[in-house]
Amino acid sequence: MNYSSFFSDRDLEFMTLAINLAERGRFTTAPNPCVGCVIVKDNNIVGTGYHQKAGQPHAEVYALQQAGELAINATAYVTLEPCSHFGRTPPCADALIQAGIRRVVVAMQDPNPQVSGQGIARLRHAGIIVEVGLCADMAEHLNRAFFKRMRTGMPYIQLKLAASLDGKIAMASGESKWITSEKARQDVQVFRAQASAILSTHKTVTRDDASLTVRYDELPPEIRAIYPQTLLRQPIRIIIDSQNQLSGNENLFQQYGEIWLATKFPRKLPHANCHLLLDNKGKDHIDLNWLFEECGKKQLNSIWIEAGAHLAGALIEQNLVDELIIYYAPKLLGHNAQNLAVLPTLNLLANAPQFQFKSVVMVGEDLRCILHKQH
Amino acid sequence: MNYSSFFSDRDLEFMTLAINLAERGRFTTAPNPCVGCVIVKDNNIVGTGYHQKAGQPHAEVYALQQAGELAINATAYVTLEPCSHFGRTPPCADALIQAGIRRVVVAMQDPNPQVSGQGIARLRHAGIIVEVGLCADMAEHLNRAFFKRMRTGMPYIQLKLAASLDGKIAMASGESKWITSEKARQDVQVFRAQASAILSTHKTVTRDDASLTVRYDELPPEIRAIYPQTLLRQPIRIIIDSQNQLSGNENLFQQYGEIWLATKFPRKLPHANCHLLLDNKGKDHIDLNWLFEECGKKQLNSIWIEAGAHLAGALIEQNLVDELIIYYAPKLLGHNAQNLAVLPTLNLLANAPQFQFKSVVMVGEDLRCILHKQH
Repeated sequence: MNYSSFFSDRDLEFMTLAINLAERGRFTTAPNPCVGCVIVKDNNIVGTGYHQKAGQPHAEVYALQQAGELAINATAYVTLEPCSHFGRTPPCADALIQAGIRRVVVAMQDPNPQVSGQGIARLRHAGIIVEVGLCADMAEHLNRAFFKRMRTGMPYIQLKLAASLDGKIAMASGESKWITSEKARQDVQVFRAQASAILSTHKTVTRDDASLTVRYDELPPEIRAIYPQTLLRQPIRIIIDSQNQLSGNENLFQQYGEIWLATKFPRKLPHANCHLLLDNKGKDHIDLNWLFEECGKKQLNSIWIEAGAHLAGALIEQNLVDELIIYYAPKLLGHNAQNLAVLPTLNLLANAPQFQFKSVVMVGEDLRCILHKQH
Repeated sequence: MNYSSFFSDRDLEFMTLAINLAERGRFTTAPNPCVGCVIVKDNNIVGTGYHQKAGQPHAEVYALQQAGELAINATAYVTLEPCSHFGRTPPCADALIQAGIRRVVVAMQDPNPQVSGQGIARLRHAGIIVEVGLCADMAEHLNRAFFKRMRTGMPYIQLKLAASLDGKIAMASGESKWITSEKARQDVQVFRAQASAILSTHKTVTRDDASLTVRYDELPPEIRAIYPQTLLRQPIRIIIDSQNQLSGNENLFQQYGEIWLATKFPRKLPHANCHLLLDNKGKDHIDLNWLFEECGKKQLNSIWIEAGAHLAGALIEQNLVDELIIYYAPKLLGHNAQNLAVLPTLNLLANAPQFQFKSVVMVGEDLRCILHKQH
């Protein structure tokens, strides 16, 4: 396919707006991707839209509705290749054709190998000028979780850690409330709210009596402004409890929302919203690769993990972490405090798991570092 | 004293330039402070100067020389209160008066309680308009080491650490070459070059066969451009060797430059450039407070410390660290690797030593965090 790569500053401006719109859906679109659309006629924006929720119209449909007859001979900026198949809604490529759109600028092709390029082909076949690749990096980043699942069948794995400057996550006594500040914990709520699922272990759940829910009131005001409480989606909570040690009386089970228990042995479900993920091979640890494959099959785009040093270490050693989010509090806990990651097989510096800093910002008095797996 | 606090944008521009000029002296002025001066007549810069080296003229003198007769009725911007006493050079306050300067803008008063305010008083007595406080924070930061010594008699203590994301400084085996990147190690050279002294322990010197010198060729080109090799000043190397375990054959002693050995017992000096700092009270550890007091008496403004987890921990526990410089490499070394700081007496999270992030930048692929003691 022959892609144009020359875009004007106006093109850039409109596509950036489309990406900003798409981002507004990041709390609610799962398992779908976030998509934004801007329709422009004679350099005026005549329609905008973004996808909000699976089952509801796609971005293009909202934007075309707004544009009405002004869509004729207009340009549409879309952050992802328009779909060409009947899903829960009719194909957007057809809607663009029927509305009389003359040119479509697409940030990136659909990464799903089954459909990739077909929407673009359909538009071109109808005589529409299609240009692909504007803001492709931003569009890729926006839906990196969805795309990973499309490409590999596996969800995007985010591992969150909170540590002191010397990489300690608790005192020797276990005391860890609170190493990081309230602002950092509020920031965590924003990440939780975007995840398809939150994963932890029976140990963490028991120790902290954690509910692992999104607490709407703790989201910062700027997030609440774009994410109304009526749309609040509680991520699925996945608890690794291989030996069935959770009784069902924990705080976790008292909170609204679905819970998946990953276990080695069948058990009676403690709660109506509970499901089992049964890994009946071997005796001890849940196979993490198997677990994530299961999650991928069940359409989870992303998993946000809050856990202790053992699970963190296992994820890192097995090269399963796509994104590491570390909050550093500006204090030191010393050599006796508890380590961030247990890596039993690592002996040589040359074999140390390697990441790349992608973003570093202050969150209150703490530092938040986001790192990606090094490829 | 009544200080004006209204300054124009032009004032700000000229004082910023004076501070930039002052910074050029930061490798060479010790034990003196860095000072810059800009002379402005009818909104034109007619003279600039900065202090380069103890014994050489002060910033004001260079700027006045350049300005010549244009100094008459001009404004002088000076980053530190002009001196009023005869030191190795005549008082700068007198030079400004004699040159016919009409107005002097001073970033901050001299913090030395013995002379503070006297230069300003002398200028005002001569009928010069004196305004104080423009860019005071920047001026304070620039000479924070010198000022600390003036105010407390103690040098400014910078503790440098290089760690993995999980706060480890070496593998269990001791392997630590290299956790951080070459760029980070080059960056360390710039800090070393600015310090009055570099401090380490016999253990670190022996283990790494470290020379602890400034390697001019490793300074980045932008630093070499303002710091000619002919002016290269090797910071004094202070080695804590309480039990006289260094033989004198180490690489350290083969390099040009002064060495101070901090010890509990008199010893034969292994080298002509060596001096003893003898702490003959008690038997085991060097008293760090005593050591820094000695260094302050010997006019050391700042000490750059590169050491292991024990000295780092002792400095932190005794609240002696003014500035923590941590390079984080984007990798994990795991629970068996060596800790960053030994803090034997810390048991409660509430008592954890607390710092504040002051600057966070990428240095190559690593992250450099600078933290200050929390007051």
